Amino acid sequence: MELIYEGKTKDVYRLDDGTIQLKFKDDVTGEDGVFDPGANTVGLTVEGAGKSGLRMTTYFFEKLQQKNIPTHYIESNLEDVTMTVKDAQMFGNGLEVICRFRAVGSFYRRYGAYCEEGQALDGFVEVTIKDDERGDPPISKDALAALNIVTKEEYVQLKQLTKQISEIVKIELAQKNLQLYDIKLEFGRDKATNEMILIDEISGGNMRVYDENGDYIEPLKLEKRLFNDSL
Amino acid sequence: MELIYEGKTKDVYRLDDGTIQLKFKDDVTGEDGVFDPGANTVGLTVEGAGKSGLRMTTYFFEKLQQKNIPTHYIESNLEDVTMTVKDAQMFGNGLEVICRFRAVGSFYRRYGAYCEEGQALDGFVEVTIKDDERGDPPISKDALAALNIVTKEEYVQLKQLTKQISEIVKIELAQKNLQLYDIKLEFGRDKATNEMILIDEISGGNMRVYDENGDYIEPLKLEKRLFNDSL
Repeated sequence: MELIYEGKTKDVYRLDDGTIQLKFKDDVTGEDGVFDPGANTVGLTVEGAGKSGLRMTTYFFEKLQQKNIPTHYIESNLEDVTMTVKDAQMFGNGLEVICRFRAVGSFYRRYGAYCEEGQALDGFVEVTIKDDERGDPPISKDALAALNIVTKEEYVQLKQLTKQISEIVKIELAQKNLQLYDIKLEFGRDKATNEMILIDEISGGNMRVYDENGDYIEPLKLEKRLFNDSL
Repeated sequence: MELIYEGKTKDVYRLDDGTIQLKFKDDVTGEDGVFDPGANTVGLTVEGAGKSGLRMTTYFFEKLQQKNIPTHYIESNLEDVTMTVKDAQMFGNGLEVICRFRAVGSFYRRYGAYCEEGQALDGFVEVTIKDDERGDPPISKDALAALNIVTKEEYVQLKQLTKQISEIVKIELAQKNLQLYDIKLEFGRDKATNEMILIDEISGGNMRVYDENGDYIEPLKLEKRLFNDSL
């Protein structure tokens, strides 16, 4: 197998059969030693972070598979901390599709003149470009089409899949008395079929979750809550 | 008459008959002593800037009137440097609707990974919120609807009017061998009829225009080129 990309939190290998293997690392994004899933820099190493992310990701991707939602998932190996996935083509250099149920984070920073912090949003979807240098700017449906990144037809599908997947995650979390505030997804095209599929991961690092007391649950604790592990 | 708002480049009065009078000032936006229509700070005073802006605005608003495009324009008085307009309600605290024919300015700063600087765009429309404190962030159709600023139906109309008006300005300028790169418009609702109308001004300060040699034409020169005044 061949290392094709070293990411901030995952390394990517191409296996001999053409599938892709993701190796989840213990490096997490953050700043000043604090784990911050929204940060662009790798701030620290947290033992067990890779395995935790893979466990949650595997759980959610298998849920989606049961519901016939197309993803890149093939199988996971928790001991090796790897996930085997279909080879997919990103949209452009990668997009993040965010679904928001509460006005927090960059949404509140941008639109604070028009909403209260934490105000409910009805699964509001927006897209940002993965571009560290330019601060991951938001991009509209029209701009995605003008720049030939996503067609208007594909955008409709992207938005619909995002809402559907986010709703499933939200319901799963609600069963543990946890509230999903927002979640960040990535999509690509299956290179074999050209179908639009969910790629990357679904873990604590991709979402903001709050508990019944209104406290933020950090990624590693979220995994334990989800699986009823003792804290 | 009553002063109701002191703006960066215009003062706004309510007349006794309920209409609004805009007094164009010689203060222009800029930074470090350089006239920059995109800046949020009033940088300097340029003698004649108010009258120049009013002359262009009057010219374009009368063109639009002839084409039955709804605007707030009633009449202008070049000597007093004032324009009388219909009273209108802004969307939220004010939106800027930008129509782009070339990838320059903030579009290029955001999406430079996906386009060449100056690349042609097909009358691409985007909206930003007027919010100096938050850096006039861009906002999508879905976010405008989620925040109850503009409904999805109104957005369609906003975009269509913007394209129509920008195309008219583009053609006018092309007749003087000038190229419109982008233009920034403002809309509101006519308080008397609730109709969506073009408000504010259309002058050199609202657009980027380049000449046949690819040189940027600054606002005051643009007025002279448009009216064939000797430079």
